[in-house]
Amino acid sequence: MPEIGNIAFLGLGAMGFGMATNILTHKLPVTGFDVWAPTLQRFVAAGGSSSPTPREAVKNSTHIVFMVATAAQILSALFDPETGAIESLKQGATLILSSTGPPEHSPNVKKLLVEKYGRSDIKVVDAPVSGGTIRAANGTLTILASGEEDALASARPLLDIMAGMNLYIIPGGLGAGTNVKMVHQVLAGIHIVMSSEAMGFAAKLGLDTKVAFEYLSKSEGTSWMFENRGPHMIVKDEKVYSALNIIVKDVGIITAATRPSSTNPGFPLFLSSTTEQVLATGVSAGFGLEDDAQLTKVYLPSTPTLVLDQATASPGTSGFTPEAKSKLDLVRSTMEAVHLVSAMESMSLGKSVGLDTQQLFEIIKGAAGGSWMFADKIPQLLSGKWTSRKTVNGVIADLTKAITAANALKYPLHLASAVLQILQLAALKGYGAEPDLAASRVWDGPEGAMYPGSKA
Amino acid sequence: MPEIGNIAFLGLGAMGFGMATNILTHKLPVTGFDVWAPTLQRFVAAGGSSSPTPREAVKNSTHIVFMVATAAQILSALFDPETGAIESLKQGATLILSSTGPPEHSPNVKKLLVEKYGRSDIKVVDAPVSGGTIRAANGTLTILASGEEDALASARPLLDIMAGMNLYIIPGGLGAGTNVKMVHQVLAGIHIVMSSEAMGFAAKLGLDTKVAFEYLSKSEGTSWMFENRGPHMIVKDEKVYSALNIIVKDVGIITAATRPSSTNPGFPLFLSSTTEQVLATGVSAGFGLEDDAQLTKVYLPSTPTLVLDQATASPGTSGFTPEAKSKLDLVRSTMEAVHLVSAMESMSLGKSVGLDTQQLFEIIKGAAGGSWMFADKIPQLLSGKWTSRKTVNGVIADLTKAITAANALKYPLHLASAVLQILQLAALKGYGAEPDLAASRVWDGPEGAMYPGSKA
Repeated sequence: MPEIGNIAFLGLGAMGFGMATNILTHKLPVTGFDVWAPTLQRFVAAGGSSSPTPREAVKNSTHIVFMVATAAQILSALFDPETGAIESLKQGATLILSSTGPPEHSPNVKKLLVEKYGRSDIKVVDAPVSGGTIRAANGTLTILASGEEDALASARPLLDIMAGMNLYIIPGGLGAGTNVKMVHQVLAGIHIVMSSEAMGFAAKLGLDTKVAFEYLSKSEGTSWMFENRGPHMIVKDEKVYSALNIIVKDVGIITAATRPSSTNPGFPLFLSSTTEQVLATGVSAGFGLEDDAQLTKVYLPSTPTLVLDQATASPGTSGFTPEAKSKLDLVRSTMEAVHLVSAMESMSLGKSVGLDTQQLFEIIKGAAGGSWMFADKIPQLLSGKWTSRKTVNGVIADLTKAITAANALKYPLHLASAVLQILQLAALKGYGAEPDLAASRVWDGPEGAMYPGSKA
Repeated sequence: MPEIGNIAFLGLGAMGFGMATNILTHKLPVTGFDVWAPTLQRFVAAGGSSSPTPREAVKNSTHIVFMVATAAQILSALFDPETGAIESLKQGATLILSSTGPPEHSPNVKKLLVEKYGRSDIKVVDAPVSGGTIRAANGTLTILASGEEDALASARPLLDIMAGMNLYIIPGGLGAGTNVKMVHQVLAGIHIVMSSEAMGFAAKLGLDTKVAFEYLSKSEGTSWMFENRGPHMIVKDEKVYSALNIIVKDVGIITAATRPSSTNPGFPLFLSSTTEQVLATGVSAGFGLEDDAQLTKVYLPSTPTLVLDQATASPGTSGFTPEAKSKLDLVRSTMEAVHLVSAMESMSLGKSVGLDTQQLFEIIKGAAGGSWMFADKIPQLLSGKWTSRKTVNGVIADLTKAITAANALKYPLHLASAVLQILQLAALKGYGAEPDLAASRVWDGPEGAMYPGSKA
């Protein structure tokens, strides 16, 4: 087992504080740094040491964890001329970059260290995390680690302490971990918006939204996000579980990373882009600090409380009339189709950035980006063996019914309508009858099919 | 010249009244019908006759013009069991269907006449109109007439009276005229929404919106709709020139006609679909009866008067700082790119429904669906000879700058973002460097290129 000496932990926010104190419980020495003095005092009270600058903090450290808020703050902690760690980094030290940033961030740090500062001895690991403060504190965060082999080997014991069973080593070199997180956030962002699009549609159709949530969350249209956000829409609850601004930032990282630049050819993300515009409308309307489950207000501008107002059923009610059933199925069709195509958009992006798609599937299926459709369809996509019950034209027909109904109500189905165009494009291009395979082919380049597939 | 006997004119609304009285000035006998009695009295005062039902009105008529509000009202006027014209239609009469309906409407009327009523003697002409009440009254409406040759020959003298130099005979049989109108309305709808997207963006960037309108309306990003709607955004003006609900209805006809059904494979219309969702949001927010230039409110939900508030420049001001110029160019880039792709989406639809694309270009370029980009790019598309100054990657790069700026402001660019995805898809697919040709290939089917093209 590689040797761990002193550890520096930069950034003791809600997540970082829990991660750093968890390391202390393993009897390892940790020197903390944070710009907010009271949190440093708390950390010392918990058994850690503290330093006034990153430069001081890293002096004797073999390992340095970066858990500051942004990629820009990592650059400042490392390279600030007055206080940056670069001046006092020990020979052969290992940097673990856990703040969420763009995929090119960690390779860029490595490049600066080598080319600008001549420090090719420094090991860099890209290690974005997810899982919230409780899992941070008990050492079960999901960590998506990537980098060169010696860097990963050096970081491994510390990564094990922070992640336990939830450590994934991502092949593909520095930045691959962030790429996996980005693909996951494609799904998370689309599904957050779709949760509001669906519940707003249910309300606009006149359905009881509690009954709708019960039915939809057990249907093939469900997603992790729907099951998580839905309950906050149907009970009066002003708590902010996850502010709209957070997913706005995450989706912004994705769309920025997939827009073309001098080093990046760009990649078309129809649903992420639609998602970003709906989110922007929400922020512009002044909802940035509210919970992201309040996006229903963007869909129902003149009746912003409609989803809550129509949540009137008694708990456990599950019966409904045949008329209500047919309306519920309109909503379900939109969710199924959007989650089908979001699965294809995300997996196409994953493949395009060179990720191991089998591992990508394993990571996402149980995480917050998961959906019934993702879990059902991606194994078929990866194996090339299909057992779909619907053709692409069948999906199009069901979706068309739902969109026609929404259109009559002047209810905007931003995501579902974009999905209909993608599926119609797949039909027009003659991409075959399997809806998932046909949708995935929309993202194929001229060199041929990303996911060839064949009928089982 | 074919003989014109008595004329029945069904539907004497704002347009129909002008059309019918214009026919009277040519000393032809016209019997009018309308459900609104006062308008019938006015028509008699103007020299016409009146009838209480369509059945009475058509009794002695060789020609019957239908100018009721909807296709459903045409069916009722013709086939209502109590009052429908069918019972008293003269042998060989000619029906001129001028109400806007779906493309399959006029073939459906013909089919009902033949198959259900055994009236294969009745001639049917599809003849949608546009141009407003003044041109209705002076006989210079644009009319897009299609049908069988004998029907067109019989209708021709009357069409000439109503349209003058603005009569277009559309090849392709019954329904082709409505298809041309539909392709035109694709552009009209997108450009109405884009006018608000652009002016809202200018305001959000902090520009003086009068200066912005001056600059943009003279740039390569301009459109007929922008030049028409823009002035209503920068001067306080509560007049309703064209209610939001009207373009909502027109765009709804397009998207309904291009969704798949048992008789129609469907056609993907990314921008029309995005347009429809923005329009639906506007109607849902309660703006349906307001002028469609008020759509800026949908783009600026928390500052709905921003475009007007920032219209403070003196008339004729045209100077601006270099900083303002670079912001104006961000807006211009979004308009250029959206109008480029709207031109390709509409012409692809036109080709897919079998229209003569050269004629389609001639009709649209000077009409309300026209734009600088349409006039510049479509001749190149049709001839296959190109002189573009920008590559597809150049357009993508400019658009990316604009979208990045809007994203930082949380300003939703619904259309421009959809266009970026389409262009990135074209780049991914390797559709070549010409931006217009590459975009058009997004809509190609497996049989090959709709518009082959070659470098000039």
